[in-house]
Amino acid sequence: MARAWHLKSRPSGMPTNDNFEFKETNLPTLGDGHIRVRNLWLSVDPYMRGRMNDVKSYVPPFQVGEPLEGGAIGEVVESQAEGFAPGDLVLHMAGWRDEAVVPARGVNKLPSLGVEPQKFLGVLGVTGATAYFGLLDVASAKEGDIVFVSAAAGAVGSVVVQLARAKRMTVIGSAGGEDKCAFVGSLGADRVIDYRAGPLLKSLAAAAPEGIDVYFDNVGGDHLDAAFALARNNARFAICGMIAGYNDPNPASFRFIMRIIAARIRLKGFIVFDFQSRMDEFYREMGQLVASGAVKAQETVVDGLENAPEAFLGLFKGENTGKMLVRL
Amino acid sequence: MARAWHLKSRPSGMPTNDNFEFKETNLPTLGDGHIRVRNLWLSVDPYMRGRMNDVKSYVPPFQVGEPLEGGAIGEVVESQAEGFAPGDLVLHMAGWRDEAVVPARGVNKLPSLGVEPQKFLGVLGVTGATAYFGLLDVASAKEGDIVFVSAAAGAVGSVVVQLARAKRMTVIGSAGGEDKCAFVGSLGADRVIDYRAGPLLKSLAAAAPEGIDVYFDNVGGDHLDAAFALARNNARFAICGMIAGYNDPNPASFRFIMRIIAARIRLKGFIVFDFQSRMDEFYREMGQLVASGAVKAQETVVDGLENAPEAFLGLFKGENTGKMLVRL
Repeated sequence: MARAWHLKSRPSGMPTNDNFEFKETNLPTLGDGHIRVRNLWLSVDPYMRGRMNDVKSYVPPFQVGEPLEGGAIGEVVESQAEGFAPGDLVLHMAGWRDEAVVPARGVNKLPSLGVEPQKFLGVLGVTGATAYFGLLDVASAKEGDIVFVSAAAGAVGSVVVQLARAKRMTVIGSAGGEDKCAFVGSLGADRVIDYRAGPLLKSLAAAAPEGIDVYFDNVGGDHLDAAFALARNNARFAICGMIAGYNDPNPASFRFIMRIIAARIRLKGFIVFDFQSRMDEFYREMGQLVASGAVKAQETVVDGLENAPEAFLGLFKGENTGKMLVRL
Repeated sequence: MARAWHLKSRPSGMPTNDNFEFKETNLPTLGDGHIRVRNLWLSVDPYMRGRMNDVKSYVPPFQVGEPLEGGAIGEVVESQAEGFAPGDLVLHMAGWRDEAVVPARGVNKLPSLGVEPQKFLGVLGVTGATAYFGLLDVASAKEGDIVFVSAAAGAVGSVVVQLARAKRMTVIGSAGGEDKCAFVGSLGADRVIDYRAGPLLKSLAAAAPEGIDVYFDNVGGDHLDAAFALARNNARFAICGMIAGYNDPNPASFRFIMRIIAARIRLKGFIVFDFQSRMDEFYREMGQLVASGAVKAQETVVDGLENAPEAFLGLFKGENTGKMLVRL
């Protein structure tokens, strides 16, 4: 028997506990090419909110009555697959449960970088790769650029801040509340904006009197509009997330979108999975930065599978600093 | 004495005749390096609306009480500048008047391409170059792409339609009203949308069931939102103009802007003047397409300098098909 969180109903607007159901399920017998994994760490991420809607996106929607999915680190406890043995630590997508039987293709053994396993759900996982490829490839950020990053205390944002600093850029980070802003400052951001303290446009104009060259967008909405307003010529925006719009039924409105033309702004949306073929480069470069301490991995840990929905809902209330994780 | 249209007051929202004043002015005596030009053709363009606001943009704002400016074709009648002689046909920026004294730098003699002079205000001028560089460079449009272009009966749009056809792309054009739509069809568009006939998103979804690879945006607003909704993966948007927002004090709102991420859309704003160094390439390629008849230059001509404001205001009422010109 395994225990797993299921999607009970599709949320409209902000999800609540009522959208989740905790149920026991039978695990299938172990077929050829499959492994049985006991989960140690689960990832909860804002993009999962999108999978709760019944719309086509870059990942298929969750199905009502079925277990939720997401990144997880587990230990192999039984294997019918070549190359996997009990005791191996693996990264896979059967999160939101304590145990799972999964096909071995699509499961990755953790590379030996001498770091704690949960780092592969964060700074050395999808969130770190999102920061790395978004900043350096999608936004073409380079030494000397003035970089603005929203949700700078979040999982991706906190890595962007540190990466940008390590690459000698000037970094302006925004976050909500004094504690988070202090955290962003501790990561090495040159200037920090508390978006709860006043109108964002005004704050950004004060923090970036010279304007910005790069905007790493995790939130959309007012932040994106302020970035339009303050973009310097040939600014590049990497559009990574728009959390401001995920639970908001109203269309996003922009007063300064017309500046795309005058400032020749380039916006580009991206999905980290498009960079799968470059993960070796990422492990090499980011592994070094993490090992040297140039990039630190901040985590917010919630204990217990039964609290996974709370951890997920906390993402939308700004309860995490850095990567939000569930420890089993 | 010369006669010139002056900016009498800054419009808020849609400009009216009251914002313009027709006045006689003395021409300065001809200094060294200057020429006196008698204008034959004047260009009126949507971007001039932006110059009527007192805001920093890619061109400085018009000044209240001063003559308006804009592209013009004239004949040199007197010259104190090397390389210019009476009778030369030139392209310059002292439009909105019948005669002007201007410094010869910044004035271009028309290249000998065997076409009528006013073509250099349209298909072989800034509007043609905007279509050419926007489609082929900014949007990286290539053979086989499905291209959506708004304001397809307008100056820039009508060239985009023909260029895209000449380069073997599939073209969907939008325009307002039956006559314009028929015109867009006559240019070779594969499908035509009448944006006045129903909700744009529905019309575009019907015209592009497979989605779009490229959007050439002249209008912003609903058109841009529909393009977000229907973009295929790795779609490229060239943002050339947002006429929908020029006279609208409300912020633009977008229901589908989040698709930037899932579809990895690239948006890029541009100003044709950034491609100044590539005008030789443009004259060569576009000159050939115009000479061969592959690209036709549609014009709407308004006669008489006294009617220049009417011609300009007509741009916002959809009164032009192709390039709007004033003939003196």
